[in-house]
Amino acid sequence: MAGAIQPLRWDGEALLLLDQTRLPHEERWLRCVTVEEVAAAIREMRVRGAPAIGLAAAAGMALAAAEAAREGRDLAEALQQAGSTLGATRPTAVNLYWALDRAWEVARTAHDPRDAAERLRRLVAELLDRQRESDLAIAEHGAALLPPGARVLTHCNTGALATGGYGTALGIVRRAHELGKLAIVYVDESRPRLQGARLTAWELLRAGVPFRLIVDAAASSLIARGMVDAVVVGADRIAANGDVANKIGTLALALAASRYGIPFFVAAPLSTFDPATPSGASIEIEERDAEEVLYVGKERVAPEGSAVFNPAFDVTPAALVTAIVTEAGVVSSPVGERLHALAGELVPRRHS
Amino acid sequence: MAGAIQPLRWDGEALLLLDQTRLPHEERWLRCVTVEEVAAAIREMRVRGAPAIGLAAAAGMALAAAEAAREGRDLAEALQQAGSTLGATRPTAVNLYWALDRAWEVARTAHDPRDAAERLRRLVAELLDRQRESDLAIAEHGAALLPPGARVLTHCNTGALATGGYGTALGIVRRAHELGKLAIVYVDESRPRLQGARLTAWELLRAGVPFRLIVDAAASSLIARGMVDAVVVGADRIAANGDVANKIGTLALALAASRYGIPFFVAAPLSTFDPATPSGASIEIEERDAEEVLYVGKERVAPEGSAVFNPAFDVTPAALVTAIVTEAGVVSSPVGERLHALAGELVPRRHS
Repeated sequence: MAGAIQPLRWDGEALLLLDQTRLPHEERWLRCVTVEEVAAAIREMRVRGAPAIGLAAAAGMALAAAEAAREGRDLAEALQQAGSTLGATRPTAVNLYWALDRAWEVARTAHDPRDAAERLRRLVAELLDRQRESDLAIAEHGAALLPPGARVLTHCNTGALATGGYGTALGIVRRAHELGKLAIVYVDESRPRLQGARLTAWELLRAGVPFRLIVDAAASSLIARGMVDAVVVGADRIAANGDVANKIGTLALALAASRYGIPFFVAAPLSTFDPATPSGASIEIEERDAEEVLYVGKERVAPEGSAVFNPAFDVTPAALVTAIVTEAGVVSSPVGERLHALAGELVPRRHS
Repeated sequence: MAGAIQPLRWDGEALLLLDQTRLPHEERWLRCVTVEEVAAAIREMRVRGAPAIGLAAAAGMALAAAEAAREGRDLAEALQQAGSTLGATRPTAVNLYWALDRAWEVARTAHDPRDAAERLRRLVAELLDRQRESDLAIAEHGAALLPPGARVLTHCNTGALATGGYGTALGIVRRAHELGKLAIVYVDESRPRLQGARLTAWELLRAGVPFRLIVDAAASSLIARGMVDAVVVGADRIAANGDVANKIGTLALALAASRYGIPFFVAAPLSTFDPATPSGASIEIEERDAEEVLYVGKERVAPEGSAVFNPAFDVTPAALVTAIVTEAGVVSSPVGERLHALAGELVPRRHS
């Protein structure tokens, strides 16, 4: 596939990450061989995007199990510790906890620490493979929803960099482009971390997809001016009632889409669905450092003494979501109940 | 008044401008003695904000008349040329054309070029004085609309830097603070030029007003979470039907305010009202350089080859505006007709 990126690689001994804080200016790879290195990479957003965070967390568990086996440490204790280190990195994306749950289930059935480490190694490889299949299914389902000559607006980065596969919302955009259905995609720059400007633009250039970068504040205006046929975004957590937590700025797009009558699609694997969270009101919204707002790279923008409020995510109420595009199909409004039915056994119990 | 700023000064021979592209890191003054220097300062946004642009344009006309008188050039021709140079700098803010109209009217009644230059000199001084009075009246009317302990959200910069006086929307915020009514003001950073982060934060720190800086994309979420009691913004042009052109990102605030049931106030002098523009659809929206989005200061954010769409303003439909706060009083919805009545003779015919 043209411009294919594999930003997460797993060789059984190490997790290789394309450092997303260095893009687009530098393509630098990180090699994580301990759970602490993986946790730091997640915390510092060297790997990011809800599905990719989940994959990295699974790799962290595998590395912790391998270390316990090598050093003759108690496996349960080692995994407990690893799970709590990884679980504390970023609170909003539920895929992280989903992956930790999967790792626990796999480890539980093992004969001994060495067997557990081996099973976890295979789990990571399987999850990576499955992510790609799941992403491609989402892309196919989502592209089918778009009209010919579609002008799409997207937010943040939901491409291969965010999932380790083909992407969720951006996978739909790429697939629509491959099918000749895409006229253009408008990309929100996505302050404060500028994932749109830095990462999505980088991916779209590689894939040859026509795009125009805009500031986040311009998105509502483009929608109001009739320049956009559909909004397509990802998700970090979808509550039981269908409320969607996603990158800060998503709610504004949903409000504009609703007001001006264009569809608002959320693309996410079923692992993003969290039946243990009743509604958006109970989703913990991560607040990040003031520095992210006070600086852009090394450039200080606001004067000394400025106070900042920097929530990383917002919640879009289910009522504003036209449909959620999952690997198992498209869930139309009202999304809450239907997601439950679709997810069924696919969604394991929540890691406590 | 604590923290008073006089970013536009007029000594009859020159327009002195606090260079807004250098703030908050450096307080550098520019001295403009020709119309070309004034036009360049407007174009490069060294002076900005609809009312301040109007004042600068009037000063440019005065400087052109003085030069014509000194050099014995034809006054009408010199003013024609000056008007067209200044009029081409920034198309959206109508205060610019309003000021050019005023200058024409004053020049027309003069006996000779020297008399015209003298009258225009006085006009600039008068407009500066009147701006301050007008701003203070807006601040008083607007602060009265806010509840005790008000949590306000504002966008871009609408302070003394934007008007040369006390500010419009930010004047209301300052006045509310002086009256002990303000709990906090949330300040949108206002990409791409970051007037909120650079200029509004600078003004609020000087005035001792408590604030928190947020990325533009966070504003809707704060409103949805019940953290904001009122949105207060400025305007670059208000059409005959009450539609409001203002800094890109304003529409998103209006949509969120409407959805979550908080008032959306627009603060603007009557010179911002343009009866010659029937509705927002006929307002020319300035598109600015791609560089503004591709870079933050010297920091390049998006990869080479990225295309950009960079509209500087958006249009908020009159239906989403709770009230427009002018120096002559508060105009409640439906704003279009009532503004007409209030503006009456104050609004001169549109400069062609």
